[in-house]
Amino acid sequence: MTIMPQWLKKRAAMTPDREAVVLSDDTRYTFKELNEHAGQYAYQLKQQGINEGDHVAVLSKNSYEMFVMIHALQKIGAVMFLLNTRLSVNEFLFQLKDGEVTHLLFQEGFRSVVDELTVEVNLHSVSFEQFSFEGKVDEGIAEFDLDHITTVLYTSGTTGLPKGVQLTYGNHWWNANGSVLNLGLNADDRWLLCVPLFHVSGLSILFRSVIYGIPAHLHERFDVESVHEDIMNHGVTTMSAVSVMLEELVERLGNESYPESFRCMLLGGGPASKSLLESSKEKSIPVFQTYGMTETASQFCTLDEENALRKLGSAGKPLFPGQLKIMNDAEECQVGEVGEILMKGPSVTKGYWNRPDANKETIHDGWLKTGDLGYLDEEGFLYVVDRRKDLIISGGENVYPAEIESVLKSHPSVKDAGVVGKEHERWGQVPVAFVVIRDEETFSAEALKDHCENNLAKYKVPKEFHEIDELPRNASRKLMRNRLVN
Amino acid sequence: MTIMPQWLKKRAAMTPDREAVVLSDDTRYTFKELNEHAGQYAYQLKQQGINEGDHVAVLSKNSYEMFVMIHALQKIGAVMFLLNTRLSVNEFLFQLKDGEVTHLLFQEGFRSVVDELTVEVNLHSVSFEQFSFEGKVDEGIAEFDLDHITTVLYTSGTTGLPKGVQLTYGNHWWNANGSVLNLGLNADDRWLLCVPLFHVSGLSILFRSVIYGIPAHLHERFDVESVHEDIMNHGVTTMSAVSVMLEELVERLGNESYPESFRCMLLGGGPASKSLLESSKEKSIPVFQTYGMTETASQFCTLDEENALRKLGSAGKPLFPGQLKIMNDAEECQVGEVGEILMKGPSVTKGYWNRPDANKETIHDGWLKTGDLGYLDEEGFLYVVDRRKDLIISGGENVYPAEIESVLKSHPSVKDAGVVGKEHERWGQVPVAFVVIRDEETFSAEALKDHCENNLAKYKVPKEFHEIDELPRNASRKLMRNRLVN
Repeated sequence: MTIMPQWLKKRAAMTPDREAVVLSDDTRYTFKELNEHAGQYAYQLKQQGINEGDHVAVLSKNSYEMFVMIHALQKIGAVMFLLNTRLSVNEFLFQLKDGEVTHLLFQEGFRSVVDELTVEVNLHSVSFEQFSFEGKVDEGIAEFDLDHITTVLYTSGTTGLPKGVQLTYGNHWWNANGSVLNLGLNADDRWLLCVPLFHVSGLSILFRSVIYGIPAHLHERFDVESVHEDIMNHGVTTMSAVSVMLEELVERLGNESYPESFRCMLLGGGPASKSLLESSKEKSIPVFQTYGMTETASQFCTLDEENALRKLGSAGKPLFPGQLKIMNDAEECQVGEVGEILMKGPSVTKGYWNRPDANKETIHDGWLKTGDLGYLDEEGFLYVVDRRKDLIISGGENVYPAEIESVLKSHPSVKDAGVVGKEHERWGQVPVAFVVIRDEETFSAEALKDHCENNLAKYKVPKEFHEIDELPRNASRKLMRNRLVN
Repeated sequence: MTIMPQWLKKRAAMTPDREAVVLSDDTRYTFKELNEHAGQYAYQLKQQGINEGDHVAVLSKNSYEMFVMIHALQKIGAVMFLLNTRLSVNEFLFQLKDGEVTHLLFQEGFRSVVDELTVEVNLHSVSFEQFSFEGKVDEGIAEFDLDHITTVLYTSGTTGLPKGVQLTYGNHWWNANGSVLNLGLNADDRWLLCVPLFHVSGLSILFRSVIYGIPAHLHERFDVESVHEDIMNHGVTTMSAVSVMLEELVERLGNESYPESFRCMLLGGGPASKSLLESSKEKSIPVFQTYGMTETASQFCTLDEENALRKLGSAGKPLFPGQLKIMNDAEECQVGEVGEILMKGPSVTKGYWNRPDANKETIHDGWLKTGDLGYLDEEGFLYVVDRRKDLIISGGENVYPAEIESVLKSHPSVKDAGVVGKEHERWGQVPVAFVVIRDEETFSAEALKDHCENNLAKYKVPKEFHEIDELPRNASRKLMRNRLVN
C-alpha cells in the first residue's frame, strides 16, 4: 500500500502560480485556479449525490469542463468510466450496464444521446451546464492509495466483447514516472493535448500535467492549423500524436522548422511508415515512437530520437519501471525470433472489471499477455510485427474484427462473417467485411449496412461488403482471416 | 507490493553507453561497464558465501570499489549496513552486534580496525582487495520488490542508543522520484558526489545516478580545489553539500562565476546562515536548501532557488509524494505556530531495525515524529526552529548530547554529565561537556578525555570540559540543557 497526497491539491500547494491549462483561445489557468475549479465541481458533484467509490461515466469531447471534471472526480474518489464519444447507443448501453454505472456526466451536445440512453438504463445524468466555477469548494480526499482504481476505460477485446480496463492511481503515476525518466523534465515544458481525454493517450497527459507541474495545451480535437500555431508560437515542447496527425503536420510545416524548444513528438497508435519517419527527420522533427495500450496506462516502450532512424520501425525499449519479454508458448524467444509480447510493471493494469476469466487468461504473475506479436533485436529494441493479431487500426482507433463480425452475425440474413483491414491512404486502414448470406432472396446490402451503423461507431462500420460462399477456417474451425483477400 | 526490474541491470539495458561514474582522476565508466563490474563483484560475493537476505556491513571511504560494491550487494539482494568510517571500535561493535551482521566488507585501509573488531565478534570479513573487476559475472536478481529492505543506516537516537534506520528499495526510489519532479532532469545532468556514501546524502546520489541514467562525479571526500575544478570545467550540473563545504567553495570562487549549466547546489545538513545564503546569491550560485534525514531517505523538503532569498531560512515545501504537518500534542498547529514536525510519504522508513518500542513511539499511521521543532508560514513554507531538540550539528554530522553524556557517565569519576553545542566558526557547532565529579581527589581531566576518545568518534568528543556542582534538572529530574551556559 502506497499512500500519497491528493495530486491536484498537492500540486496547487507546491506551485500555485504555475500554469496548469492553456486553451486554444489562449485562456490560461494556474494550478491554484484549476484546484479551485475542481473543488467547486467536487462540491457540486456531492450535491448531486455522487460520492467516493461511485461509478460515474463521463461523456464529453475534450474541453476545460471535462478536464476539471476528471480532477473533481478524483477529489471525491469516484471511479471514472470515460466513454468514447464515437460509440453507438448500443455500445454505450453495454458499457453503462457492464460497468454498473450509477451516474452519467455529459457535455450538453450529447443530450439527445443521453436521452436515448436513460430510457434504457436507470442512472442519474447531469449535464456539464449544471456545474459552475463558483460557490463553495470541497477540497476532497487528503490522500490517494495508489492501489485504488481511479479510471475504467473500455477496450473492445479480440473476443468482440468490450472489457473495462481498470487503472489505479498507481498505474497512472508509474506511467508518468517512467516517461519522465526517459524524456526528462524542464520547468518550462508544455505538453500539447489534442488526442481524446477519454483515451488513455489524452488522459495520461492530464496526469503528467499535475504530477510534473507543467501546463497541458488543451485542444478540443486535432486541427492541423491550431496545432501548428501552438507549436510554432506558444512554447509547446512536447506533443502526443498518431501517424495521421504527424502526416498533416509535416505537410503543413512545408519548408519551415519547429522552434528548437519543441523537443518531443511522442508518436503512438501503431507503427509509423518509413517515409513518414524520414520526412520528419528531414524537417528535424524529434519523433519518439512508442508502443503501449490502455492496459499499460499508455506508452510502455519508447524509442528515443537518437535511435529513431537507426532502429527504424522499432518501438524502442521498455521504460525504466517496466519489463518485457517475447514468448513462444512457454519458451522465451531468442533474439530476432517472433513471439507474443508480454509486459510487466507497476503501470500495467491489475485486471479487467468484472472479468475473472479474461484476467486469468491474460495476466500471470504480473505479466500481461498482449496478444501482439513482435521480436527483440540484439540490442533489446522491440519490433512489433502485428499490432495484435488481426487488429485493424483506423485513424489511430483500434478496430477489432471480432467485434464487427459479432454485429454482422447478429443480423438475420447473415450466416457467417469475417472482417479484415484494408489499406487506406488517409486512415491507414479501414475495415472490410466478407459475409456468407443465409437467404439470397431476402438479403438487402443496404439493411445490413444500416444494422452496422445502428450498432457500431462510424469508424467500425465496414467500408466494403463482399459476398462469399464460405469463410476460410482451419481444422478447429478458427477463422483464418489472413486468407480473406482484400 | 510493487515489483520493478533490478535497477543497474535495467539501466545498463536501456542506456548502456551513457556515463555512470566519473572519478576525480577523470577515469570514466559507462553503465554497461559498471553493470559488468558489479556483476563480477556479485559473483565473487557469492563465492565468499554471501547470499540474498544476508546482513553485510561495508566499511569504506568513498571509492569506485565501494560504489560498485553497493550495486553488487543489491544485485544479490543482501541487506547493507553502511558504517560511518569515523566511529570508534566500540561503536562499530555495537552496530555489528545489534544488526546481526554476518559479513564485513572493508577497504584495506581499515584492516587494523577490522582486526580489532573480529576479535570481539564472529563475522566473515573480506577486504576489497580480494575482489577484482574480472572473471565471471552474476547478473543478480531479476526484480526488486520495493517493500524489501536494502540498506540499514545507524543514527544515534536522542536516547543515546544508536538505531538502525531500515530503508527499502521503495524509500530510495521515491526519494529519487520526488527530487526529479522538483529539480527536473536533463540528459546531460551530472551530479557531484563528495558527501559520504555511508550517509544517506551520498547514497541517494548513487541511486539517482542509476535511476536517472546520469553520471555521479565521485570524490573520495570534499576537497575544495578538486570540487571547484569539477564544477568549473567538467560539466557538473548538480551537487549535494553542507554549509561548511559551500562556505569554502564561495571563498574559492572569488570573483569568478560557475558555468550557467551548473543549476543546483542542494544544501542540507542543517540550516544555513543568512550571510552564506546572501554571498551565494551575490555569486549567482543556485542554492536549494533542504530538510530531511536518514529516516526519509534524504531530502524531504526543498526550497527552490526562486524563493531562496524571499523565504530566507526556510527549508521549502515537502516534495510531491510527501506530506508534512506541525503538531502540538494532539492538535495541528496554526500558521506560524511552533510545534513538532511530522512527515509521511513513501520515502519514509517503515521503522528501525529490531526496535519495536521506538517504532511504536515514533511512527503512527505512517506519520514519522521527527522530534524537530518548526512552523509553516502562510504559504506553506517550512521553518525548522530547532534541528531536533538539543541536537548538535558539527560539520554536517549529527551529534546527540545524550550519547556523549552516556559515555561520560560511564567513567568512574563522573557522577553526572550534560552536553550542549557551542558555536564554532568552522564546524558550525562543537560539543561541550558539563560534568559533576564524584571524587575530586582521584579525578583526572586527561583520563576523562581519553575515555571519550576511546568510545566516541572524534567529532563527538567534547572540545571543552567544565566542572559543575549540580546539573539543572526539572521536577521530574529531566536535564534542562538550555540552562547550561556555554
